[in-house]
Amino acid sequence: MTNINRRQLGKGLAGGLAAGLLGTGRSSAAPRPSQIDAAWTPVAPGVWKSTLGSPEAITPVKGRLVAPKLTALGSMQHADKPPLAVPVGSVSARGVSVELPLHTNEEIYGFGLQFFSVQQRGKKRVTRVNADPHMDTGDSHAPVPFYVTSHGYGVLIDTARYATFYCGETKPKPTQAAAAVNSGDVPTTTTELYSRNPADEASAKVLVDVPAAQGVDVYLFAGPTILEAVRRYNLFSGGGIAPPEWGLGFWYRTQSNATDKQVLALMKEFRERNIPCDVLGLEAGWQTHAYSCTYAWHKDRFPDPASFVRQAKALDLHVNLWEHAFIHPSSPVFTPMVDLAGDKGVWGGLVPDFEDPHARKVYGDYQGKALLDMGIDGFKLDECDNSDYTRGWSFPELSKFPSGADGEQMHSIFGLRYQSALWDQFEQRKRPTYCLVRSSGALAAPYPFVLYSDLYEHRQFVRALVNSGFSGLLWCPEVRDAKSDEDLIRRLQTVVFSPLAMINGWYIPNPPWKQLDRKKNNANELMPQWESLEAKCREIIGWRMMIVPYLRAAFAKYAEDGAPPFRALALDWPDQPEVAKIDDAWMVGDRMLVAPLFAGETSGRTLMLPPGTWHDFWTGTVMHGGTKVQIASSFEKIPVYVKAGSVMPLAAVTNSTADPHRRQLTVQVFGDGSLPFEMAGSLKLSWDQAAKKGSLMQSGSEAYTVASWSVKG
Amino acid sequence: MTNINRRQLGKGLAGGLAAGLLGTGRSSAAPRPSQIDAAWTPVAPGVWKSTLGSPEAITPVKGRLVAPKLTALGSMQHADKPPLAVPVGSVSARGVSVELPLHTNEEIYGFGLQFFSVQQRGKKRVTRVNADPHMDTGDSHAPVPFYVTSHGYGVLIDTARYATFYCGETKPKPTQAAAAVNSGDVPTTTTELYSRNPADEASAKVLVDVPAAQGVDVYLFAGPTILEAVRRYNLFSGGGIAPPEWGLGFWYRTQSNATDKQVLALMKEFRERNIPCDVLGLEAGWQTHAYSCTYAWHKDRFPDPASFVRQAKALDLHVNLWEHAFIHPSSPVFTPMVDLAGDKGVWGGLVPDFEDPHARKVYGDYQGKALLDMGIDGFKLDECDNSDYTRGWSFPELSKFPSGADGEQMHSIFGLRYQSALWDQFEQRKRPTYCLVRSSGALAAPYPFVLYSDLYEHRQFVRALVNSGFSGLLWCPEVRDAKSDEDLIRRLQTVVFSPLAMINGWYIPNPPWKQLDRKKNNANELMPQWESLEAKCREIIGWRMMIVPYLRAAFAKYAEDGAPPFRALALDWPDQPEVAKIDDAWMVGDRMLVAPLFAGETSGRTLMLPPGTWHDFWTGTVMHGGTKVQIASSFEKIPVYVKAGSVMPLAAVTNSTADPHRRQLTVQVFGDGSLPFEMAGSLKLSWDQAAKKGSLMQSGSEAYTVASWSVKG
Repeated sequence: MTNINRRQLGKGLAGGLAAGLLGTGRSSAAPRPSQIDAAWTPVAPGVWKSTLGSPEAITPVKGRLVAPKLTALGSMQHADKPPLAVPVGSVSARGVSVELPLHTNEEIYGFGLQFFSVQQRGKKRVTRVNADPHMDTGDSHAPVPFYVTSHGYGVLIDTARYATFYCGETKPKPTQAAAAVNSGDVPTTTTELYSRNPADEASAKVLVDVPAAQGVDVYLFAGPTILEAVRRYNLFSGGGIAPPEWGLGFWYRTQSNATDKQVLALMKEFRERNIPCDVLGLEAGWQTHAYSCTYAWHKDRFPDPASFVRQAKALDLHVNLWEHAFIHPSSPVFTPMVDLAGDKGVWGGLVPDFEDPHARKVYGDYQGKALLDMGIDGFKLDECDNSDYTRGWSFPELSKFPSGADGEQMHSIFGLRYQSALWDQFEQRKRPTYCLVRSSGALAAPYPFVLYSDLYEHRQFVRALVNSGFSGLLWCPEVRDAKSDEDLIRRLQTVVFSPLAMINGWYIPNPPWKQLDRKKNNANELMPQWESLEAKCREIIGWRMMIVPYLRAAFAKYAEDGAPPFRALALDWPDQPEVAKIDDAWMVGDRMLVAPLFAGETSGRTLMLPPGTWHDFWTGTVMHGGTKVQIASSFEKIPVYVKAGSVMPLAAVTNSTADPHRRQLTVQVFGDGSLPFEMAGSLKLSWDQAAKKGSLMQSGSEAYTVASWSVKG
Repeated sequence: MTNINRRQLGKGLAGGLAAGLLGTGRSSAAPRPSQIDAAWTPVAPGVWKSTLGSPEAITPVKGRLVAPKLTALGSMQHADKPPLAVPVGSVSARGVSVELPLHTNEEIYGFGLQFFSVQQRGKKRVTRVNADPHMDTGDSHAPVPFYVTSHGYGVLIDTARYATFYCGETKPKPTQAAAAVNSGDVPTTTTELYSRNPADEASAKVLVDVPAAQGVDVYLFAGPTILEAVRRYNLFSGGGIAPPEWGLGFWYRTQSNATDKQVLALMKEFRERNIPCDVLGLEAGWQTHAYSCTYAWHKDRFPDPASFVRQAKALDLHVNLWEHAFIHPSSPVFTPMVDLAGDKGVWGGLVPDFEDPHARKVYGDYQGKALLDMGIDGFKLDECDNSDYTRGWSFPELSKFPSGADGEQMHSIFGLRYQSALWDQFEQRKRPTYCLVRSSGALAAPYPFVLYSDLYEHRQFVRALVNSGFSGLLWCPEVRDAKSDEDLIRRLQTVVFSPLAMINGWYIPNPPWKQLDRKKNNANELMPQWESLEAKCREIIGWRMMIVPYLRAAFAKYAEDGAPPFRALALDWPDQPEVAKIDDAWMVGDRMLVAPLFAGETSGRTLMLPPGTWHDFWTGTVMHGGTKVQIASSFEKIPVYVKAGSVMPLAAVTNSTADPHRRQLTVQVFGDGSLPFEMAGSLKLSWDQAAKKGSLMQSGSEAYTVASWSVKG
């Protein structure tokens, strides 16, 4: 069995397993109304499919554009039989419903980028695309109809509909009368009345309600552990990504209406003041018109864009451009796209029919020639989720597209197809990229895009980071502004331990550390003694630069075996109830645990430290896991713990990842050094006794030097 | 044309207009897939129907149980042609969509009990049944697929689906390229980016997205004014209601687990301390088991229920019982209902198939015999909305019922059908009732039920009161507890000017004025000087007793001509933009404007007083409308204004409406007395010079005496 990669896919594949996986075989869409139960059919190592009824033509798997990593799937532990009974389906005029088993004390995780809870059992989750979720409903700008359970398997409902998952609370009607008794007191709080913990209930089910469809494919992913189930889902999706090294440096987005001179002046100041920065992001004002977009440079603000990009590159900066997909009538790409768009307009612009490969090509080709060829290294794809309820700026679910997609389906796939339109351009040019996007969906793991949103509550941002790893997503809890010095520090401490470390200054001309007050910042009234806050921020951004080698290793593993580089503790300790429920701490890679502090929480926090021996990352102090630890609030550091034995390489702090000095490592060994450091993928670097002695380590074309090492704890 | 009343309906009608209205003719459900455009067909005076495609069998109009008030409709201003172009429909696998015209500067109101906004243009509204709406999405425990506009017409989409209304913000795609220009600054706030006021945009549409259905009936209600459009909708629904006089007195609900002795002791204390009370409500603990319900008296707490009810009646109290519809296996009605229930259980109980008349009858008959015949005068029907996202206690949308309804349809009609099951029992006994319910829907005006909810934010409660009148609903902003003395006062001031004046003490053994702190209240630790707060509350409850004659007149008009007794200012002044948008003041009847104060808002409030001359209700001070007035915060009074010329009869404050002394009126004449007071319906009482002289006024069997009168202002 060969690993069908993306490039082969572009040439067209037919027949056999791959075709079935890739949806080129459309026979399953033929009406088979009576077939609502089906067997599990193996489709990849440890992956099964069950077709209930007549699935729709437009679904995440059928429209997939990246092939599964079959070789990597094949190298996982052999799963000889499906770990779950066959689902039962039922079709009605309103859609198809699916019933899946659930066991006593089986906990459920997933459903994409969830902001309000981590454990989903007993809840109703709707995979509705919504830019602005404010309740724990399942709505998200990146919902995914995929869940994993503590029993070590995953389920993907292959639909582009807003499906509803009833996670175990629904019960059949009672049929046996009971004897009358006078019960005790009735609860007198709504919390008592409405809450219960059904996790310990036997014979519960997961019920899935898929509107409109007359059938659906259900995919099952074996474990045996929950982490392996997620890995299988990610490998089936096409594997995780390893971003270019510059993508893991620090990002800064400048004010929307800044001119080329203003932007470059700020970046020069960063260099002079040793604020690390690898990526410079421009917001909406670079275009002649936004909202909607022209993708054409604003002549007053950027009179010579090629020169601007060259000057940025001379500063070792990669330029990232904001855009959304809604095409203004004055855009050069408007006329070529006018027949490749939906029937509704958004902000006076076209909505591209991204389900159509030709629409993606026309849209992408324009930007490839106009922007990539000039040196643009990435994009921020905004507003591609849904208007939710903020005065309905997006296209309605009843929209129609030439490809046959309706608005609901389009919302579910729009984010990923939009990513594809631009990613293709980078792929054609064999150039790496690392981008931002506001919507994603099922099978997103291989896409080099990181989610962000307009939400801003710090705890929600952390919860999204915890949840992202269940569903093949990456999340950037970006820093925009802050209520206080402490709030800025806390948010920055969080983002530097995330997939993408960024400050988004789109509405302030000065970095937030110079002035937290938005109005004063815009009036260039700086805070007195801002330099001390800047110094604190510089130090935190420096931490990011130090862990770049560690992050690269974690991402290389993601690309190779699908293990999420940022993930919930539940994925590593699913059977420790007090650990598995944690929604305010996450793992970076396989050995680093981050437990952030939040502004105003002066008494610090508690953390149920997972079993085993740990070290405080900063001090080396030994901590014993399996108990709840009290962490004092410190303004200086974010609580980070590493597993005992960890060998941790820390890079020298440089102004960007382009500086060769970054290859000078300070290696910290926690305890006995029994957990060696290894980079999988393109960069093979293993820790050994030689490294401890400070020798040069070679890895392909990249050389690391161990400048110093120390043993902590 | 005869007025087809409810009793005739029970005997079965066939053919002609009535049958079409009542849905006994099922021919429209036959497949006509190609018909998606249709003409307006007159169905009642000033009411038209347009059938798009093949509507579903289960809809609010097809399942209606109360006949339209055709005579009253016929006596309204003749509307010779439909005030709106024919809707355009489109059918797809995901459902039917409808497009309706919308004009420049046309504002939209309605959609049932909305808590978060009054004006709906530019918004996306979903008529999803949700017990716990926390965002401005359209979700509500009483959504109604009906809207009215400032252009003086109403539209009902006859569906039991969770329909989505795109209220004018959706635009067709652009088709013409434009010349490139360098635009000015991009907004740098999300508020600017996402908000716009599309009300002044021409060629907008209302788009309605109805899932699952392959067709839908659209009903159009003429005005010519917006108030007349609402009246027509209410008369088409069967007219408004005139509750029994006791229903307009004060209500108090006692603690869930209180015993008969405790309840009666509290009520005797009310009588001794002159706290008016007409209705005594028992919460869940009266039953042997709740949640789910047995509808059987708890033998320890109520060993002799008949005696208890007799003792309550002796105190002039009407007993109202809490229940929900989910039937516990130990209920006497479980076995008769087990085959008349849906396939899912809720709280371990059956979900009655209330779409089936037989299920309603079996369920209602049991309660009629067991409870009504004992003297119970009303019910509080809880939890009949939907579980939304509070750990999913309700039945899922994919539930199936023997009648053919699915869970989504059942949620939309459950509240009203449940009301019907119990109301029928009162009707059979020719006994009036006035009840509480947590869910309602389309065509609810003739049902003697008032909505309430678990929400509690005071401004939301007021907004719900403002919105209720657009869609034939009544709303009780009940008082449960309060954060402060002022909060209690403010909430009580609001509720006494609402359809149902109630304190719900379900989790406190003592009235809130004795102890605001819940824990201390339960420990019987009373606040020092609670008597002064009690005195304040007594005074406010007294206001309620004083306005009962005025409320009766407003309700009599509601029953006769459909004019909502509680309504938004937009219904009376749709063309005054600053008045029409008010979401924190409402009209009671045709001449009284209530503008409540909210706790903590120490600087008072502003009010855009509608055009004309007004008087302060309390002082008689003349106020000139058409300008914004600043109202100082006063602890003593809620701001109330009456139109100049109003003749206002105020009843003597009595301990209940059973006290004959209540017929002694103090008549206040504001200004020239040119707005006489009249009661329509059963009680005909007109103000005249004789009344001014203090003579006896006879009205049927009821005699009023004018004890005194005064001219104010």
